[in-house]
Amino acid sequence: MALVVQKYGGSSVADAGKMKHVAKRVIRGKLAGNDMVVVVSAPGKTTDNLVEMAQLISPIPDEREMDMLLSTGEQQSIALLTMAIKGMGHKAISFTGQQMGIRTDASHTKARIVSIDGSKIKKALKEGKVVIAAGFQGTDAAADITTLGRGGSDTTAVALAAALKADVCEIYTDVTGVYTADPRLVSDARKIDRISYEEMLELASLGAGVLLNRSVEFASNHGVKIHVRSTFSEEEGTMVGPTMKDMEKVVVTGIAHKKNEAKLTLAKVPDKPGIAAGIFKPLADAGINVDMIIQNVSEQGTTDLSFTVMKSDLDKALAVMEPVKNKVRAKGLRYDDKVAKVSAVGIGMRSHAGVAAKMFDALAKAGINIQMISTSEIKVSCVVGLAQVDEAVKVVHKAFGLAKRKKK
Amino acid sequence: MALVVQKYGGSSVADAGKMKHVAKRVIRGKLAGNDMVVVVSAPGKTTDNLVEMAQLISPIPDEREMDMLLSTGEQQSIALLTMAIKGMGHKAISFTGQQMGIRTDASHTKARIVSIDGSKIKKALKEGKVVIAAGFQGTDAAADITTLGRGGSDTTAVALAAALKADVCEIYTDVTGVYTADPRLVSDARKIDRISYEEMLELASLGAGVLLNRSVEFASNHGVKIHVRSTFSEEEGTMVGPTMKDMEKVVVTGIAHKKNEAKLTLAKVPDKPGIAAGIFKPLADAGINVDMIIQNVSEQGTTDLSFTVMKSDLDKALAVMEPVKNKVRAKGLRYDDKVAKVSAVGIGMRSHAGVAAKMFDALAKAGINIQMISTSEIKVSCVVGLAQVDEAVKVVHKAFGLAKRKKK
Repeated sequence: MALVVQKYGGSSVADAGKMKHVAKRVIRGKLAGNDMVVVVSAPGKTTDNLVEMAQLISPIPDEREMDMLLSTGEQQSIALLTMAIKGMGHKAISFTGQQMGIRTDASHTKARIVSIDGSKIKKALKEGKVVIAAGFQGTDAAADITTLGRGGSDTTAVALAAALKADVCEIYTDVTGVYTADPRLVSDARKIDRISYEEMLELASLGAGVLLNRSVEFASNHGVKIHVRSTFSEEEGTMVGPTMKDMEKVVVTGIAHKKNEAKLTLAKVPDKPGIAAGIFKPLADAGINVDMIIQNVSEQGTTDLSFTVMKSDLDKALAVMEPVKNKVRAKGLRYDDKVAKVSAVGIGMRSHAGVAAKMFDALAKAGINIQMISTSEIKVSCVVGLAQVDEAVKVVHKAFGLAKRKKK
Repeated sequence: MALVVQKYGGSSVADAGKMKHVAKRVIRGKLAGNDMVVVVSAPGKTTDNLVEMAQLISPIPDEREMDMLLSTGEQQSIALLTMAIKGMGHKAISFTGQQMGIRTDASHTKARIVSIDGSKIKKALKEGKVVIAAGFQGTDAAADITTLGRGGSDTTAVALAAALKADVCEIYTDVTGVYTADPRLVSDARKIDRISYEEMLELASLGAGVLLNRSVEFASNHGVKIHVRSTFSEEEGTMVGPTMKDMEKVVVTGIAHKKNEAKLTLAKVPDKPGIAAGIFKPLADAGINVDMIIQNVSEQGTTDLSFTVMKSDLDKALAVMEPVKNKVRAKGLRYDDKVAKVSAVGIGMRSHAGVAAKMFDALAKAGINIQMISTSEIKVSCVVGLAQVDEAVKVVHKAFGLAKRKKK
């Protein structure tokens, strides 16, 4: 008998019909002899609607009260799903974050889980009940309700799996797994059977969009195996777990891309110590996340410095950089909001030379100009023009032979 | 400095505009130097919508899960109202039933309050915060969420007022107070300035519809003064409190009516001991509330027995009575679902003869036939035809001179 943690996202419980579909799926897992703990998100657009209501009330809603408000969405889901399962004649019980002892810090709207007292869940499982657990929420030391921020229900599921020593954490979504590239872009993209935490982290942050970094990090730290799969299909999905030897034979695992990037360039910055700090500290202070940073080779004591930010941060970044430009005596400040990033990711890269060269060659042959390059041990990223990124993903995907059957 | 408990119903917090209106009203109370504890119901139709969702999931939803679901409505209200007040620059904090220590028994969907630990509220008040409290909910000994049933938010408000020894409990509604008759029916009905708990209990159960019995009983037991008033007007409403001497000068305080009644008659029941129990125990076992019971004078060893039930219980009552009819050897079972009840209520009746006679006379002069009569120390009730009840209220209201200015 295994202990299975499942997590269903908002689109999987958006209406009564879908809710019943999930109930049946959960019951099947129970009838197969497993102990079942099921984490659910708020139904469909509930969270968006609540945020909208809050903004009608106050332009900058108080964060403690925002958590009080938003946590009701998941509470509705767990009640409805439990009713559905009990209505089908099976034992089940719902728990809020508070009830199952999910203790967090006090950072409202983006709290971190501090500890989980799983005793109530264990007792319910022992009584043969399916446990339906509210995702995304906990309580802090003052017993105030907190929420975990974006992707919070995934984090709840992984944290529960870790606390309960579950055999697997199944994350149900509307895609059948993690792909070698976005299947909407690359028609012959292949579903990846197994992927390492490290690769998944790179793919998540690079925009594969299936799992958020935070839950993958948590899983990696606690050795929780994640199975990413579809609510609406029986197909096996993608297993995310520790690196295994044979994984390293695959040089490139997948190609990710991100379209919401913008590039800023400070031209002819005097090349002396402390300049970089003078530029990037004000951005950090303004809460702007800088992604890639490229500094050209110095010419006659000056250098061009380019970096990318989220497109939504561009205006704020320009406002921050204007005084900085004068302070560091740069000759100009340019920006380009029509850029995108394409990245090849793979554990196998570590021991294989020539990956970057192969990628650059594929892009060159397709006539795609590379504007910026950044590499790590397990990825190569290139910034290209936004109009060319779809083509870039296709040619790189092809160059690494990802559409072919996986070699084992 | 007074401690004021206010309660706003669902229609008072139905949208962002109304929510802000309530916020301003609360702030005004605070600025006047009062400590404020504000109980709110779920916004507008939220509870109805949640019930509907539950019924789509399961025809008979599990009651524990129903409470888990329904309690989210009030939680949304307290979060939004607190945001509104904080958005206007004042200190406020919201508490769920669980957070403010409202402990109930475990009767899901109709729980009774067992105790209130007001320490969190007192601490927040000491910090100068307005406390926004979720109505209708608590938790039982197992830390499961419970709800208090119909009118539950009123009960929460009165119970908090009792626990905190508040100076007054203001119940805000969409009418300006308790009237001598339904103002939609009797155009010159007068708002009652002060009314005793006992009279209010009779008026509430008789259909005045402003406060539910349970909260009035609770207030009476704990000596909590209730001020029933309108959210949308500055006008003073009706004070509900203990009987005071001068109240007894007013013979009749108000005329109530109830249209959702049905009458059943068992004809020619053998008149012997134990018959009544044999008839009414099965009804009680079926959860049917019987209101008036009239037994005619016995003739030749048999009697006609009539009683009224809620119209919505009529089918169930008939099903219960069919076998009972045979068992008690009654000659027939008749029913009439076109009946209504009109009642005159007043503490002063106790010491004034002739109230019933005056009422019967007024009805007779209007050509209204009285089908059943029942009296208590402070009320006289008559069952009349449904088509005549509006007219009955008018003539009785007039007969007791209620439209005139109150004599003091």
